[in-house]
Amino acid sequence: MHLAGLRICCSEMFPVGPGFANGSRMSDLSRSLAATADRITIALDALLPRPQGPEARLFSAMRYAALGGGKRLRPFLTLEAGRLFDADETALLRTACAIECVQTYSLVHDDLPCMDDDDLRRGQPTTHKAYDEATALLAGDALLTFAFELLADPQTHPDPKMRCLLVAGLAKAAGPTGMVAGQMIDMGPPSDDGAGDDLVTITRMNRLKTGALIAFAVEAGCLLGAASDDARHALARYAQDVGMAFQMVDDLLDIEASAEELGKGAGKDAAAGKVNFVTVLGADGARARVRMLADQAKAHLAVLGPRTGVLSALVDYIVDRRR
Amino acid sequence: MHLAGLRICCSEMFPVGPGFANGSRMSDLSRSLAATADRITIALDALLPRPQGPEARLFSAMRYAALGGGKRLRPFLTLEAGRLFDADETALLRTACAIECVQTYSLVHDDLPCMDDDDLRRGQPTTHKAYDEATALLAGDALLTFAFELLADPQTHPDPKMRCLLVAGLAKAAGPTGMVAGQMIDMGPPSDDGAGDDLVTITRMNRLKTGALIAFAVEAGCLLGAASDDARHALARYAQDVGMAFQMVDDLLDIEASAEELGKGAGKDAAAGKVNFVTVLGADGARARVRMLADQAKAHLAVLGPRTGVLSALVDYIVDRRR
Repeated sequence: MHLAGLRICCSEMFPVGPGFANGSRMSDLSRSLAATADRITIALDALLPRPQGPEARLFSAMRYAALGGGKRLRPFLTLEAGRLFDADETALLRTACAIECVQTYSLVHDDLPCMDDDDLRRGQPTTHKAYDEATALLAGDALLTFAFELLADPQTHPDPKMRCLLVAGLAKAAGPTGMVAGQMIDMGPPSDDGAGDDLVTITRMNRLKTGALIAFAVEAGCLLGAASDDARHALARYAQDVGMAFQMVDDLLDIEASAEELGKGAGKDAAAGKVNFVTVLGADGARARVRMLADQAKAHLAVLGPRTGVLSALVDYIVDRRR
Repeated sequence: MHLAGLRICCSEMFPVGPGFANGSRMSDLSRSLAATADRITIALDALLPRPQGPEARLFSAMRYAALGGGKRLRPFLTLEAGRLFDADETALLRTACAIECVQTYSLVHDDLPCMDDDDLRRGQPTTHKAYDEATALLAGDALLTFAFELLADPQTHPDPKMRCLLVAGLAKAAGPTGMVAGQMIDMGPPSDDGAGDDLVTITRMNRLKTGALIAFAVEAGCLLGAASDDARHALARYAQDVGMAFQMVDDLLDIEASAEELGKGAGKDAAAGKVNFVTVLGADGARARVRMLADQAKAHLAVLGPRTGVLSALVDYIVDRRR
């Protein structure tokens, strides 16, 4: 019953209809995204500990944060990248779940009062609003740690060398020289003299904060599929362009969309006086760059042959999304 | 210069002289503990990222938390357990550093205002007092993630199967069914009807909150030394008794010692109306149980032969410590 509710929540995140550019191709993608989101939610539901004992509140908060919808973009990238090389589906699914645990933990901690202080996430109260700050902090810690437990488990892949590559890759993407570094830069006060407000600095911040985990999501699929170096490099460039376009669209939506559309607070960067792609490039400049990145991302896929239709359509989805 | 100061800080944590029961044996142990603490601090100094770039504040806070002294009890256990079986010293040292990163992260997050709200740790301002809450949160996240990066690195051990065992073991000890579960139970409000205030519940909470990581510190030494099953089981029981005695002494010190002696706030549990071993057993009851656990821990070592003198002396150190 719990899961049925979540399934509706997932499918609602990928509306089919006006607002999407290429009718039937986008409908196929929306269905595919929704189906993957459901699979991830169901897999996480089976993997995460069930609330019991005096620590039940922790497990309940972990599940609240991890099972309450979300685009599941990173798991989708892992699954679709791996499928290009016929990687094992169980390995892909468990790895995708670990990556989504890390993504979820980062949102839970990012939403805390001492960080972005958000009340709304994925259209629901943030974890610290639904529970309390201490529980949200611990649920984030637990989700992060659980991700590595998942990856190191022989059920994820029979070869321990592969499991170590996944653990090391996820730790680098998420840790002090990856995502957390990006969060730190993002938390820094706007400088009085405008230092650090340039495109190079904003680009690097976003490459760390959101790009590193998106890049690893694709890389994990390549690793599990034993992709050739050429294919890995092409997909790494695709991931980099997709990650950057994704963030630019986020920054555009922050000024263009309502909180209701976003499922989270809108106009946050402007309210906080924060610098982002739109403040540096202007809305038109950011839109132009998104189109350029989208074209470039699709061009990288060309060397991989005809099976990349889904990853190509995903670029349009990311560019045209309203949340 | 930075490290020289830290070295003094480390050595100050293990005073030699009155207050210790067995003169020269304790002096040897104090020197050994101080030397290990120094080695861990120096190794962490070399391993942790150096402050640079716009994210320098993150690295600085990680180093502040991790290099500012501490007993380094868990690393000591890993090194001494591993040495019983002639494990590789580099593997032991890197694993010990990973475990200490996790211990440090847990303290940084535990000290945050939404958790125990402490101003003092290891005689210094807590990380969120020295920096700010967001930076402390992120530094904790980064230290936790970095621990897994360290363990998955081939420099830790050439065999990926061993690295996976270490990653999985640390994740289980630290994660939702280990340390974080214990923290969650500890954060729970005291129940009105006294449910959960019994010895069984307190024991389980402490086994999760502090015992699991102490047990893994010993287990990691056994893994790296390819110890026999008999030896592992004996040391696992030793670790369990040591962990429980350690916590009971902590609870006794909370009512008996000053903040100056502890290097952290004193009388916290009483002020918060928290249940602990002393509130459940009484001070005399807790002291009697500590002595029983100490004897039992030493008895477990007997099957391991004559090389366990240091681990045996450590039991007395833990029981007699004043911080």
